[in-house]
Amino acid sequence: MELTHFDENGNARMVDIGEKDITSRFAVASGKIFVCKEVYDAIKNKDVKKGDVLTVATTAGIMACKKTFELIPMCHILNLTNAKINWEMNDEQLPDGNYEIKCTCLVKCEGKTGVEMEALTGVSVALLTVYDMVKAIDKKMIIGDIYLKEKDGGKSGHIVN
Amino acid sequence: MELTHFDENGNARMVDIGEKDITSRFAVASGKIFVCKEVYDAIKNKDVKKGDVLTVATTAGIMACKKTFELIPMCHILNLTNAKINWEMNDEQLPDGNYEIKCTCLVKCEGKTGVEMEALTGVSVALLTVYDMVKAIDKKMIIGDIYLKEKDGGKSGHIVN
Amino acid sequence: MELTHFDENGNARMVDIGEKDITSRFAVASGKIFVCKEVYDAIKNKDVKKGDVLTVATTAGIMACKKTFELIPMCHILNLTNAKINWEMNDEQLPDGNYEIKCTCLVKCEGKTGVEMEALTGVSVALLTVYDMVKAIDKKMIIGDIYLKEKDGGKSGHIVN
Amino acid sequence: MELTHFDENGNARMVDIGEKDITSRFAVASGKIFVCKEVYDAIKNKDVKKGDVLTVATTAGIMACKKTFELIPMCHILNLTNAKINWEMNDEQLPDGNYEIKCTCLVKCEGKTGVEMEALTGVSVALLTVYDMVKAIDKKMIIGDIYLKEKDGGKSGHIVN
Amino acid sequence: MELTHFDENGNARMVDIGEKDITSRFAVASGKIFVCKEVYDAIKNKDVKKGDVLTVATTAGIMACKKTFELIPMCHILNLTNAKINWEMNDEQLPDGNYEIKCTCLVKCEGKTGVEMEALTGVSVALLTVYDMVKAIDKKMIIGDIYLKEKDGGKSGHIVN
Amino acid sequence: MELTHFDENGNARMVDIGEKDITSRFAVASGKIFVCKEVYDAIKNKDVKKGDVLTVATTAGIMACKKTFELIPMCHILNLTNAKINWEMNDEQLPDGNYEIKCTCLVKCEGKTGVEMEALTGVSVALLTVYDMVKAIDKKMIIGDIYLKEKDGGKSGHIVN
Repeated sequence: MELTHFDENGNARMVDIGEKDITSRFAVASGKIFVCKEVYDAIKNKDVKKGDVLTVATTAGIMACKKTFELIPMCHILNLTNAKINWEMNDEQLPDGNYEIKCTCLVKCEGKTGVEMEALTGVSVALLTVYDMVKAIDKKMIIGDIYLKEKDGGKSGHIVN
Repeated sequence: MELTHFDENGNARMVDIGEKDITSRFAVASGKIFVCKEVYDAIKNKDVKKGDVLTVATTAGIMACKKTFELIPMCHILNLTNAKINWEMNDEQLPDGNYEIKCTCLVKCEGKTGVEMEALTGVSVALLTVYDMVKAIDKKMIIGDIYLKEKDGGKSGHIVN
Repeated sequence: MELTHFDENGNARMVDIGEKDITSRFAVASGKIFVCKEVYDAIKNKDVKKGDVLTVATTAGIMACKKTFELIPMCHILNLTNAKINWEMNDEQLPDGNYEIKCTCLVKCEGKTGVEMEALTGVSVALLTVYDMVKAIDKKMIIGDIYLKEKDGGKSGHIVN
Repeated sequence: MELTHFDENGNARMVDIGEKDITSRFAVASGKIFVCKEVYDAIKNKDVKKGDVLTVATTAGIMACKKTFELIPMCHILNLTNAKINWEMNDEQLPDGNYEIKCTCLVKCEGKTGVEMEALTGVSVALLTVYDMVKAIDKKMIIGDIYLKEKDGGKSGHIVN
Repeated sequence: MELTHFDENGNARMVDIGEKDITSRFAVASGKIFVCKEVYDAIKNKDVKKGDVLTVATTAGIMACKKTFELIPMCHILNLTNAKINWEMNDEQLPDGNYEIKCTCLVKCEGKTGVEMEALTGVSVALLTVYDMVKAIDKKMIIGDIYLKEKDGGKSGHIVN
Repeated sequence: MELTHFDENGNARMVDIGEKDITSRFAVASGKIFVCKEVYDAIKNKDVKKGDVLTVATTAGIMACKKTFELIPMCHILNLTNAKINWEMNDEQLPDGNYEIKCTCLVKCEGKTGVEMEALTGVSVALLTVYDMVKAIDKKMIIGDIYLKEKDGGKSGHIVN
C-alpha cells in the first residue's frame, strides 16, 4: 500500500501524472440532502421559485467542478469536457418523517488522471447550495450519502459502486 | 413561509442584510467519512504520513471557509474572525466493517448574518480532501452526516442540533 | 481634476478610503443584450428552458458582484449586504429587426466607498452569461448601454442618470 | 434549434465537447466606452498617468480572459495560448459631445471549443477597469458595442461580423 | 512562547481575532529583484515598454494584496482601505555586476488584525511579475530582501525594522 | 533583445505560444527564510506543531503553483502534471545569529511553455506561509535567495543555475 500523495520524506505532494496516458475519462458521483416536508414541497412544487432552487444549485455545482483544483490541495488542473448535474425528488416519506433529494453529477475529461474529485465536489457544493437557499425554513437538514457511483478511463478501468 | 433568497419575480437574489444588527456569531458543523480498515489505519497510525493527511485536510477546510462566498451563490462575503477544524478518529469498527472519521468545523464572525454555510463548507471540503488523499486505497468511501451542530448570534438565537 | 487612482509618481494605486465614513450605500446599473427573434423567443417562452437562461445568468451576475475586487484592479473588498438582478423582456421589435433584453443590478453595502463597480460588473457578467448560453443560435448579438442608473450614500450623494 | 446548454430535463449543463476535434482557434471581440472630453484628454495625453490607465486596464482584461471559466457558468477551462488587448482613441467628438475609446481583445487557443467568451470577457473587464479608474471625473460614462468581431477554428469556420 | 496558529491538539487553525479591537493599521514591506544590466536598462529607459513592466507589476501586486487570504491559509479576510506600490531603480552597479530594483508596498486597514502579510504578499507578487516579464532576457535573476519595514496599529504598536 | 510580453504598440500582452511544441518540461526553484533561533527550534523540533508548520506551508505552496496564472498577469494556464515542495533545515547558525530554512519547489508540465514561474510562485507562497505562522515570535524575518535552480524542456533546453 502506498499513499501516492506523499513523497519519501513525508511531505505532501501532488501525484506525478506526467507519464500517464491521456484517455477519455468520466466519473459520476451522487449525494443527498434530507429535508423536512415543508422544504421538500417548496422545492418540488411546480411554481417558479422551486424550480429555481435546483437551477441555482446546478449552476453552483457545475462552477464548483471547475474549481476543484483550487479547493482540494493535491488535485490537478484538468480541462473538463463536460459537467452535468441531475436531481431526483423522492416523494416517499422516510421513516423519520423527512424527505430526500438526490443529486448526481457527471464529469468528463480527456486527460491523465480521473475526475472523481470533480464529480464529488460538484455534488457537495450543489447540495450545500440547496441547504443555503432553504435554511431559513429548516435548520435540521442533513447532507449525506456522498460517494462515487461510477467511473471509467485510466488504469483502474470501469468501476461501479 | 418565505423563501428569503427569492424576490417577488422569482429571480434568485441574495438576502438583504443591510438592516440586520452586527452581533458576535458562531456556527459549528460536523460530518464524517466512512473508510475501510486499511485507510483508517494509514491515517490513524502515528507516523508522519498519517498525521499529514489530516493537516492537509485541515488546511483545505479552513481555506474553504474563506471561499464560501465564491462557492455558494447567495452567501455574503463575511470577515470571519476564526475558523478551526478538529478530527475524531473512532477506533470502533462499524457493523459494515468500516470505520468513521469525524470532522468538526467552528467558524466565528462579527457580522450581520450567520456563518453556518462557512462551517458546513469547511467540513465538506476537509472531508473531500481526506477522500482525495487516500482514494488510491479505497474507492468505496462515503461522506455523510454533514449537519449544523450548533450556532449562536443573531435573531434566531442559540440553536443546538 | 485629480485622477485619484494614481499617486504622485504616476504609479497605479488603490484610493485610500481609510478616512471616509461608513455609510449605507447602494448602486443600480443596467445594460442590454440585443438578440435575434429566435433567441428572444427561446428565452421569453414560458417553458423551463427559457426561464433557466435568466436564472443561470442571474446566479452568475450575483456571484460576479462578489468577485469585483478580484477583477477590477483598484476596487476594494467590500462586504456587500445585498445583490439583486432583474430582467426586462421587451417584446417590441427594434428597427433593425432585433429584440432587447434589459438587465438591472442593485448592490448595497455599509461601507467606506461606493458599489457602482459591483453593480456594473454584475450586469456585465449576467449579460455575458446570456450571450454564452444562446451563442449557438445567434453569433451577431451585441451587449451595450451599460451604465450607472442611480447611486446613493457617501460624499457625492444621490445621483440619478 | 437546440439550446445546447440544457439537457433533456431542462437542467443547466455544460456542453459536452469530448468528441470535438482539437483545432487552432481564435476570437476577436471589441467594445467601447463613451466618455466626456475631460476623461478622454486625461487618458489620451502623453503623460505617464494617462498611459497607465490603459495599461492597468489591459492587464485586468488579460487576467479576466483567464478567469472566464470562473465567471461564466457553462464555459470550459481552456489553455489559452495567447491573449492581447489593443486600444483605439478616436479624437473625433461624437454628436452628443462625448468621445469613444475602443478596446479590442484577441484570444487564441488549441482546443475543442471556441474562445469568443474569453475575448468578450476580456473586453468587458478592460472597459470596466477604465470606468473605475476615471469614474471620479465622469459619472455618466456608457459601455457598449460589445460584440464578436471575428472568429475561426472549429466546426462553424471563419466568421466575420 | 506560543504558536498562536495551533490549537491544543496540534491542529492548524486561524487565530481567533473576535475579541481584538478594531484599530487603524498599516504595514510596509519591501523586497528586491537583482537583474543584469540589460534587463535593468530595458526597464529603466524612458520608453513606454519599460514603464509598462512596472505598471503591470504594480497592478499584479495590488491585486495580490487582496488575494492574500486565498493564498496564505491562516490569514483573515480583511477589508483593506488602501494598497500602494512604489519602485526604486538604483543605478549603481552592485559588486557582482548586477543591478537592483526595489519594490515597496504599503497596505492599510481598519480591522482586528495586522496587514503585514498583505504587504509582504504584494511585494512578492509584484517582484515575481517583473521576473516573468523579463525572464526571456535573464535567467539568473534573484528575488530577495523581502521583509517587514514598518507597521503600526494593534497591540504590538509601532514597529520599524 | 525583445521583450516578448509587449506588442508593437507597447501594450502588455501574453506571449503567443500557439506555435510552440508540446514537450515535457520541469522547473525547480528555491528560496530561503531567515529566522531567529526561537522560531527555528519551534519548527525544527519533532513535536507535532513544528511538523505542521511545514505541512501547512507545503500545502499552500502547492496550491499557489496552481494559482500562478491568476497571480502573474502574463502567465498561461497550464495543466501541471506535478508539484512538489521540499524543505531543508540548516542547523548551522549564520554569522548574524539567525538560521535559514530552505524551500525547494519542483513543477512539471507537458505543455507549450515553461513552468519556472509556477515553481517560483510555489516557493514564494510557501515561505510567506511559514512567515505568517511564526510571525508572532519573530518580526524581523527575511525571505530571500529566490531563484530558478534548474529547468528543462522547450527551446532553451537544460539550464542549471
